[in-house]
Amino acid sequence: MDEFELIKTIFHPLQHPAGEGDKSADSFLMKIGDDAAVWKGQGNLAFSIDTLVEGVHFTPDIPPKDLGYRVLAVNLSDLAAMSATPQFFTLAITLPSCQSEWLKLFALGMKELVDQYQIPLVGGDTTKGPLTITIQAHGLTANPVYRSGAQVGDDVYVSGCLGDAAAGLKLWLDGIRNPDSSDQCYLIERFHRPTPRIELGEALATVATAMLDVSDGLVADLSHVATASQCAIELDAGKLPLSESLLKAVDQNQAKTWALSGGDDYELAFTVPSSQRDVLKQISEELGVSLTRIGSVKSPGNANKNNANKNLVNVINGPEAIKTSGYNHFA
Amino acid sequence: MDEFELIKTIFHPLQHPAGEGDKSADSFLMKIGDDAAVWKGQGNLAFSIDTLVEGVHFTPDIPPKDLGYRVLAVNLSDLAAMSATPQFFTLAITLPSCQSEWLKLFALGMKELVDQYQIPLVGGDTTKGPLTITIQAHGLTANPVYRSGAQVGDDVYVSGCLGDAAAGLKLWLDGIRNPDSSDQCYLIERFHRPTPRIELGEALATVATAMLDVSDGLVADLSHVATASQCAIELDAGKLPLSESLLKAVDQNQAKTWALSGGDDYELAFTVPSSQRDVLKQISEELGVSLTRIGSVKSPGNANKNNANKNLVNVINGPEAIKTSGYNHFA
Repeated sequence: MDEFELIKTIFHPLQHPAGEGDKSADSFLMKIGDDAAVWKGQGNLAFSIDTLVEGVHFTPDIPPKDLGYRVLAVNLSDLAAMSATPQFFTLAITLPSCQSEWLKLFALGMKELVDQYQIPLVGGDTTKGPLTITIQAHGLTANPVYRSGAQVGDDVYVSGCLGDAAAGLKLWLDGIRNPDSSDQCYLIERFHRPTPRIELGEALATVATAMLDVSDGLVADLSHVATASQCAIELDAGKLPLSESLLKAVDQNQAKTWALSGGDDYELAFTVPSSQRDVLKQISEELGVSLTRIGSVKSPGNANKNNANKNLVNVINGPEAIKTSGYNHFA
Repeated sequence: MDEFELIKTIFHPLQHPAGEGDKSADSFLMKIGDDAAVWKGQGNLAFSIDTLVEGVHFTPDIPPKDLGYRVLAVNLSDLAAMSATPQFFTLAITLPSCQSEWLKLFALGMKELVDQYQIPLVGGDTTKGPLTITIQAHGLTANPVYRSGAQVGDDVYVSGCLGDAAAGLKLWLDGIRNPDSSDQCYLIERFHRPTPRIELGEALATVATAMLDVSDGLVADLSHVATASQCAIELDAGKLPLSESLLKAVDQNQAKTWALSGGDDYELAFTVPSSQRDVLKQISEELGVSLTRIGSVKSPGNANKNNANKNLVNVINGPEAIKTSGYNHFA
């Protein structure tokens, strides 16, 4: 299969989400097939570009279907963090060779999210080289929620459970390929197939004052909110949402450490005025997504100056040696 | 320098084109610094994503400033081919290590085009791994020119000269690092620093019936026009625009071969009704860009069925063994 056949047989089907009909059809003058795609839609277009590199973000033996799912999911997660509704994406993939079976499975993993969120592939590039995948996902957002809007007194929430992805990655790196329990299976899946919290991000558009997705680690990520919002954040590690599977796998201390610094969970962390607690309860029930209050926004002057984290996130009831750095390429 | 310092010192300055003032300021709610950029501009947004891989698209010892220029130039060329005016771009860069001097020069190369076309960087991702650079460039186009609009009887034109980039690449691969003549210098520069034909693309918006940029090779690229437009194209190799520098470097036969199949010239090839010849002459004079009539659009039935190129591009007066394949990853 050469480059053009590859594009035609593997990637063209991703142009057309199955299901409710391609809502993007009317908003494009051109998708794949010319020098550029041409979008004529209206509204605030949010977009984020993200790269996954073999050996850095995933191991060479990741199931290709999971990889396809993951690479699109982490980009959708960025849209969720801006309260954006997915619209379309582009894909630049660098491949060492053209293994069509591998690519079919890779595309199948993406197709799940293409169909679920009705987000077609509208352009791309295929090149030869070390396996590297870059996606730019685009969404529409009437009320983007930034990192900079947190107010002193706001509650700090997080969706779902934290630390699972770090535990799943550990299992995978330890060589677990055929998990011997549903708990192991769950944890590995949480690393390979993160759930982009699109519906939650949409629901929080006019509720959250600041929001981001937990990709580098909760403390590291919330430090960006603290910095952008010129505030301090106090987290109560005793309130962190930890899954049963995680607590079966490791002790409390390790679980909390991963929840605070593990990253890769792609849950949404956000700040909300405390007057909105009932609204959040309602959103949580409607969407079937747990939302846990884990801290509060303080004035910078109240931050514990002796805390190791210069970025103004203070963790109480936490493990002794919490790694607060998060993931930093080239650190 | 860690990831965050890198972004701040090297890439943040690319957000703000120097010169006439940042025309993008009003059309963005958010650029770099959150989970996604948010554009609120209006109009037909053309965008193209392209990846350059070390060892495939450039050699490891390419001057970093030239690499920065080239990676943005080839993306701008795609916008030119859609008659689009550059607006903004995103950058996903995978680096083996963080060499700040190299990166400063790389960014300086991009800055030339950022300033020239007032196209700010608005988002990106930096990751660790084999050197790979992906850019998505975005532009506005009131009248996008597609590949599919060529009409039987149209003239076929190309801008500038062809074959220079292939000759420059050959010199570079032969180890020429300190060119001993202005001709060699010119040819190598044509490979490393292609000129995106933005102003020409804009001027052709309502004149050209079909257009693309010459990246894979003239014949291969025009075969896409022929296929999309359901026509045949006849090229007269005797009319190909060949630079003096190219003709000093190699014989006529080699020069024509490179002009037809070399690629990487990033000139615009386009079709125009023959009634528009005076208009083209005027555009050429106003912009100071040579435009050469090199062929015409035929009905598919008139294509030479015995021609090796199944994609309906017929070359007359051409070299004996013209390679018509163009560049095809994985072929």
